[in-house]
Amino acid sequence: MSKTVYIIRKEHFNAAHKLWRNDWSVEKNEEVFGKCANKNWHGHNFNLFVTVKGVPNPDTGFVINLKDLSRIIKKEVVDVFDHKNLNLDVACMKDILASTENMVIQIWEILEEPIQLAGGVLAKIRLEETENNFVEYFGGNEPY
Amino acid sequence: MSKTVYIIRKEHFNAAHKLWRNDWSVEKNEEVFGKCANKNWHGHNFNLFVTVKGVPNPDTGFVINLKDLSRIIKKEVVDVFDHKNLNLDVACMKDILASTENMVIQIWEILEEPIQLAGGVLAKIRLEETENNFVEYFGGNEPY
Amino acid sequence: MSKTVYIIRKEHFNAAHKLWRNDWSVEKNEEVFGKCANKNWHGHNFNLFVTVKGVPNPDTGFVINLKDLSRIIKKEVVDVFDHKNLNLDVACMKDILASTENMVIQIWEILEEPIQLAGGVLAKIRLEETENNFVEYFGGNEPY
Amino acid sequence: MSKTVYIIRKEHFNAAHKLWRNDWSVEKNEEVFGKCANKNWHGHNFNLFVTVKGVPNPDTGFVINLKDLSRIIKKEVVDVFDHKNLNLDVACMKDILASTENMVIQIWEILEEPIQLAGGVLAKIRLEETENNFVEYFGGNEPY
Amino acid sequence: MSKTVYIIRKEHFNAAHKLWRNDWSVEKNEEVFGKCANKNWHGHNFNLFVTVKGVPNPDTGFVINLKDLSRIIKKEVVDVFDHKNLNLDVACMKDILASTENMVIQIWEILEEPIQLAGGVLAKIRLEETENNFVEYFGGNEPY
Amino acid sequence: MSKTVYIIRKEHFNAAHKLWRNDWSVEKNEEVFGKCANKNWHGHNFNLFVTVKGVPNPDTGFVINLKDLSRIIKKEVVDVFDHKNLNLDVACMKDILASTENMVIQIWEILEEPIQLAGGVLAKIRLEETENNFVEYFGGNEPY
Repeated sequence: MSKTVYIIRKEHFNAAHKLWRNDWSVEKNEEVFGKCANKNWHGHNFNLFVTVKGVPNPDTGFVINLKDLSRIIKKEVVDVFDHKNLNLDVACMKDILASTENMVIQIWEILEEPIQLAGGVLAKIRLEETENNFVEYFGGNEPY
Repeated sequence: MSKTVYIIRKEHFNAAHKLWRNDWSVEKNEEVFGKCANKNWHGHNFNLFVTVKGVPNPDTGFVINLKDLSRIIKKEVVDVFDHKNLNLDVACMKDILASTENMVIQIWEILEEPIQLAGGVLAKIRLEETENNFVEYFGGNEPY
Repeated sequence: MSKTVYIIRKEHFNAAHKLWRNDWSVEKNEEVFGKCANKNWHGHNFNLFVTVKGVPNPDTGFVINLKDLSRIIKKEVVDVFDHKNLNLDVACMKDILASTENMVIQIWEILEEPIQLAGGVLAKIRLEETENNFVEYFGGNEPY
Repeated sequence: MSKTVYIIRKEHFNAAHKLWRNDWSVEKNEEVFGKCANKNWHGHNFNLFVTVKGVPNPDTGFVINLKDLSRIIKKEVVDVFDHKNLNLDVACMKDILASTENMVIQIWEILEEPIQLAGGVLAKIRLEETENNFVEYFGGNEPY
Repeated sequence: MSKTVYIIRKEHFNAAHKLWRNDWSVEKNEEVFGKCANKNWHGHNFNLFVTVKGVPNPDTGFVINLKDLSRIIKKEVVDVFDHKNLNLDVACMKDILASTENMVIQIWEILEEPIQLAGGVLAKIRLEETENNFVEYFGGNEPY
Repeated sequence: MSKTVYIIRKEHFNAAHKLWRNDWSVEKNEEVFGKCANKNWHGHNFNLFVTVKGVPNPDTGFVINLKDLSRIIKKEVVDVFDHKNLNLDVACMKDILASTENMVIQIWEILEEPIQLAGGVLAKIRLEETENNFVEYFGGNEPY
């Protein structure tokens, strides 16, 4: 059996957002989205954990060089999301609800190819919005 | 492939318990359960992480509304376990050993149906007893 | 010597803000405030630690009842700052720069009197903006 | 000026307790102590941080050898409080309310002399009961 | 379905290491391994999480007695890796690159049999090198 | 009273060291320094918290610009200590024991002047060596 190892890199970004549908009334927005519907936005410190799997390269001992993985995440995600308004400033989030569920799917779409080009296989993304709320995504796979 | 996302909510409760069998001698209890057999109880801060999976609802961006998930966990688990004695006060734990393994199985049994009624699928429960000891349960499934 | 004990309660809130001066050019704002000057806001999860000092009441063992302290912080601070835009929605922050330094001073001004009315003495406030940036305030005192 | 350094050692213990006065009615106990008055106890994971100050010994670079400090805390506090019932099993807590305020004062009384005999000066004790509730004690001093 | 529970024990060790190949030039080592190639070593606090799966024993409520699991990890891993130089002092690491990927594979090889002898099934190992870099290993299995 | 606020920046570095005196026997070194005397070194992830005090500048709301504070700490401390051997590679530690007590004093000496030049007053340094061992230094002052 090949010795597949999963390596995880944590990065973080701080962003503003709101959960809001223009085609719903204020009351409906507040009923569904609660405080997250505040019209002037609110924000979070997001922690992002990106898991790449692979067999360690015998020359380096690495699944993927963490310098490369960190550089990819910073360029593709952190530079785009950090200190931004998710609804107004981040292209891939503009036409969808800024829920963490939708965020984690978009971040997967963004990272899958550059990580593949760097020789890795994206296996899982975890996104932490607060100390109590997190999402995890396996590219649509359902390991459990 | 459907875009299944896993969403996790953390709640916590503080409880007393002991690990003890009446059909065993004091010596046998202490040999097997160590300090956890102290007859006058001891206690812990328990952190509970409940994972629900599903495809985000296109209308809300949510797998499940975290307000609903939090409300269900608080009503079904926290209100029953918090500031209680697991051996004496919690009905579902009375006839079984108050190990974290047994606790996490009971909590799964409690939460599976209400989460299903709220439109989610319970996928995993993690229960942290101390900074060093945790259990995880996938409803009996063995993803690895 | 009286046995003064310091008791600390942690609460948290999530908010949007930007660091921005209308009387400065865009360039000047970006030079001084960096990414924090993003015009469409960004946000944070703020952790707030409120320290109250006093001699434990012999009848209760309490410096202050934590239920009361938590209720005061939630009513006076969390309900005002949580899921809000600090620059637009929070009255006490409107005419000043939304730095953590200014926030912690304002939160002290808000909490000092209600805590005194509840029989405590506000001793210290710690406000955490990210995992790496914090401020502490002792009401202007300089213990070190 | 002498180069006084403060060194801190973290230890932990898990214990059961309740907040309860026999000379009060059930109603009065529940009004004041809330869920903490549950008659069958509840419990916590307590984190204990002991600060010792002094000028580093030029022969060792140590204010106090952490092996000694850890050994003292374990013998005097952890062995006495861990996996115990604070109200029933811990002599120094029996006649007083088992609040964290009273606990931290008792722990100071216990540790002050053995630390002095080991060549250190006890400066501060921090006791964490939950992720949100803490007490700190400076031996009755009020640095701020 | 059998009620398989996963139980996790955290231990830690502190060690020095460097990432270095003698058959590469200094420049090549620094290009690939960056700061980790510093010839005089550097070091880390490693957190190790060992997951064992099984059906709780009806007599004890345990998948495996955590006292046994902790003892095995301490004897087989912590005593061997703690306060050591991974390249010079740890036999199983001597002829391979001291990457976390290689470490986690070696630790699996070490722990699999003793845990089996104690009645458990090793299911996963997580090794944390810093707050931002982690690896996970499922014995070569790829659950996702 | 002036509204003095304390602002704290966290940085981190990973380093190898040993506690060892050449003028002592192996036995004496091991008796005093325990596992920390391992001749081939061991290492840690160090967390460094630097506190600067001052009255917020009315033009910026800042005690000190955190970009400047972070830059100073990185240039003066992190670049010097990170991925290094404290005993062999770090000039200011070469002739003294590499205890955290001595480290925190040296780091104070390094940072005091550059922070003053940036308009701040260094008030406190906290250095965390492991999850259980920390030191704090107030420049020799004894606030408590």
